[in-house]
Amino acid sequence: MPHIPLPAHLPGITGLLEYRRDTAEPIRALTQLILRGESSLTFAERELIASLVSHRNECRFCSAAHSAVTDLLLGESDTCELVRQDYESAPVSEKMKALLHIAALTQKSGLHVTDSAIERAKNAGATDLEIHDTVLIAALFCFYNKYVDGLATDFPADPVYFRELGERIAVGYGRRPEGYEEK
Amino acid sequence: MPHIPLPAHLPGITGLLEYRRDTAEPIRALTQLILRGESSLTFAERELIASLVSHRNECRFCSAAHSAVTDLLLGESDTCELVRQDYESAPVSEKMKALLHIAALTQKSGLHVTDSAIERAKNAGATDLEIHDTVLIAALFCFYNKYVDGLATDFPADPVYFRELGERIAVGYGRRPEGYEEK
Repeated sequence: MPHIPLPAHLPGITGLLEYRRDTAEPIRALTQLILRGESSLTFAERELIASLVSHRNECRFCSAAHSAVTDLLLGESDTCELVRQDYESAPVSEKMKALLHIAALTQKSGLHVTDSAIERAKNAGATDLEIHDTVLIAALFCFYNKYVDGLATDFPADPVYFRELGERIAVGYGRRPEGYEEK
Repeated sequence: MPHIPLPAHLPGITGLLEYRRDTAEPIRALTQLILRGESSLTFAERELIASLVSHRNECRFCSAAHSAVTDLLLGESDTCELVRQDYESAPVSEKMKALLHIAALTQKSGLHVTDSAIERAKNAGATDLEIHDTVLIAALFCFYNKYVDGLATDFPADPVYFRELGERIAVGYGRRPEGYEEK
């Protein structure tokens, strides 16, 4: 049961974004910019970072949500699972492995991101902006994971839930979905 | 040296907010809402939470910045230091001790926030919204700390720096300061 009264039909982050709609606005705007804005990283590459970080923080809701959307964007469900198990041997580019490594270090602590991890990413062709965005996405999902779990939000019982959520966030994060009050 | 090229005269978060001004906007807006918006928690109480979390994440820049602003808001520099050392024995209300405890648990992991920690806060008079905002502030500063340290931003050499930054953020976080290009 959540630590504060949240709408029962809105599990995970969705109930929190309704609970305080004013703070939800910049949270949505930041997520939209960094995950769906212009970038040399694909939507799926950015979602892989979000998914790995959420998985490592053991945030069930965010982990399920961002693996669902990654699978949807890639059209298969192997890569995301393999990245979570071991990104070094997963079927992604050398650049993505280096960026996922930076994300994994950021998840532990910003202080863990070493010069050699950065150098590896640059040698694999990562730009400064891609490195910046990787750290920003990793930090943002540590925020989400702590927000979602720190208030003990509900995990949805219906297995279809994450497929539908994945379809919605594949399109974007910028707007409050309609129909939240209806249920 | 920062992992990406950042303006040398803008240490810590200030250089990152200039590096990507589009993402800086919602980051500033969220911080302004949660730390300076309407609340039954004072500015200083909210800054104490930011300061404790930054201290525990060993983020030197954020830690120094938010202790400077807390000291300024309180008009003394003992309380913030004592909260960092041990909030249970620090000269703050029972409610603040309970909220600082929730923040400290959130800093470790959202999954660490127990029912008993929440019950303690409610028994000490904390509202649901205060509990929500405490978790949100703690999560937000984990974000900031990881962003600032994950990119190895500079720590300012000048000891006067944090007093001036404290004076600026005591007023608010919502706007990009003027004169950044001048130096």
